[in-house]
Amino acid sequence: MDFILAPLLFQMSNERSIAIFGPGLLGGSLALAVRRMMPQCEVRIWARRSTAVDDIHRRGIADVASTNAELVAEGASLIILATPIVVMESVSLALAGRLAADAVVTDVGSVKVPVVNLLQPLFASSGHGFVGSHPMAGSEKAGIEAARHDLFDGAACIVTPTDQTHAAALDRVSRFWVQLGCRILTMPPGEHDRKIARISHLPHAMAAAVSLAALQQDETAAPCSGNGFRDSTRVAGGDPDLWTGILLENRLEVMAALEDAMAQTKDLLAIISRQDKEALRRFLAEAQRLRALVPPGA
Amino acid sequence: MDFILAPLLFQMSNERSIAIFGPGLLGGSLALAVRRMMPQCEVRIWARRSTAVDDIHRRGIADVASTNAELVAEGASLIILATPIVVMESVSLALAGRLAADAVVTDVGSVKVPVVNLLQPLFASSGHGFVGSHPMAGSEKAGIEAARHDLFDGAACIVTPTDQTHAAALDRVSRFWVQLGCRILTMPPGEHDRKIARISHLPHAMAAAVSLAALQQDETAAPCSGNGFRDSTRVAGGDPDLWTGILLENRLEVMAALEDAMAQTKDLLAIISRQDKEALRRFLAEAQRLRALVPPGA
Repeated sequence: MDFILAPLLFQMSNERSIAIFGPGLLGGSLALAVRRMMPQCEVRIWARRSTAVDDIHRRGIADVASTNAELVAEGASLIILATPIVVMESVSLALAGRLAADAVVTDVGSVKVPVVNLLQPLFASSGHGFVGSHPMAGSEKAGIEAARHDLFDGAACIVTPTDQTHAAALDRVSRFWVQLGCRILTMPPGEHDRKIARISHLPHAMAAAVSLAALQQDETAAPCSGNGFRDSTRVAGGDPDLWTGILLENRLEVMAALEDAMAQTKDLLAIISRQDKEALRRFLAEAQRLRALVPPGA
Repeated sequence: MDFILAPLLFQMSNERSIAIFGPGLLGGSLALAVRRMMPQCEVRIWARRSTAVDDIHRRGIADVASTNAELVAEGASLIILATPIVVMESVSLALAGRLAADAVVTDVGSVKVPVVNLLQPLFASSGHGFVGSHPMAGSEKAGIEAARHDLFDGAACIVTPTDQTHAAALDRVSRFWVQLGCRILTMPPGEHDRKIARISHLPHAMAAAVSLAALQQDETAAPCSGNGFRDSTRVAGGDPDLWTGILLENRLEVMAALEDAMAQTKDLLAIISRQDKEALRRFLAEAQRLRALVPPGA
């Protein structure tokens, strides 16, 4: 893993116009964050449904909002795809060849190998740079109602260049995220998907499994919950459709992570079953040590 | 499960003097909460180590603090055992037969069957009422440094009477917790241990297993963490010694819960492996439904 920090931190992003595709939690928060942190930058938003466009107009968070992708991309220097991964392809096909000459494209998808494999050649064919991004910011809440201008502040943002990525595209995309308060980590798409399977997709899947194991047989345990259960399973409140897509897109890495979690649980069961106090203490102490490696939240 | 609410909510606790045994996170928070919510009530604290007694004096959170259990219990109307479960027996043996005539005893242990089986007859032999309590409040932080006057505010407190419990003892202990801001749930000790294995001990054990599965092979994934991993695994930062005791004390119920979590994980793996989109959506939607039964935190 490679930490790019020094040159980025000291140079402002100077995008003149940003086009956001998809006005959900991430897209909406992007618009609010750009308004606040880059007030000189125009904000353009594309939504699939016209009711969503009306909502954006009502909220006054964009200079331009439309269901017409080509119109929204017009003149934009930075294009950000914030739709579900399955929608990115059709949107990108509508855009490729119709962007401003200096436009750079990124996305905010949770899985990078399939997205980069699809979009990098697609935009390269019209001479535009694409580099994948994954800001580690979100919420179990969905939709523009939950959008926050400070969603990205203090969050890690993983940027995933390949050996075909133009240095200038990587630089501009990274500077943009730094401007929004992110700390940048760069790594190849495959390494991203492997790490994120474990640090994001695994805890999500296990929060669902734990919620089921805790409450399926006896729902009346729910009011007994303390903050431990509340925090441990918070992400299980996330949108099932969104997470079905993510877990299947990254299934090989997710399955490897789930296998490891099952092996750890099996070990733990054996330790408790034989009442091995010292082994249990070691198991918990090693988990505590690893957990402490995680930087505090924003 | 039985919700006792109506009569308690309208009657103040009028304990004249509370003796807290064990000045950790819970004991310290109890002292601070009583000071604030029951300013007429004397606060007495017992600690095993004299350095802890000095610390309590320095913080000024007790009227009396000592390593002498008998002295601390003198005249107290409510005795609260807030030591690790293994220490409760020796403390209780030192106290039994030396309490004020009207004294009532409770504890804050995370496992209730062994505690109630031990302490109820022990105090009954000297004519004192004992009823087990488990306030669902805590933190991955330990010690009096982390104590907070509002730790119990809005938390569930499970009170575990048996058919030998005096109604007056149950009433006084429940009123005390209500005064500190808790909502009371009553159930037998066995039901408590079964429910809490699932709603508290299971998520703790799984947070440890997930931390190990996520980071043991590749610690450099840690800086990629977002709030999902941070929240899901927060409790894995808890004290390994404390949690070794809790998981072993309640091992039969914990093992049943871990078996169920493994079965759920195995199902999930099979679903992802065969790319069964509809089954995955159902799995996540059912987890989301169950998670929504949990009341919001304080």
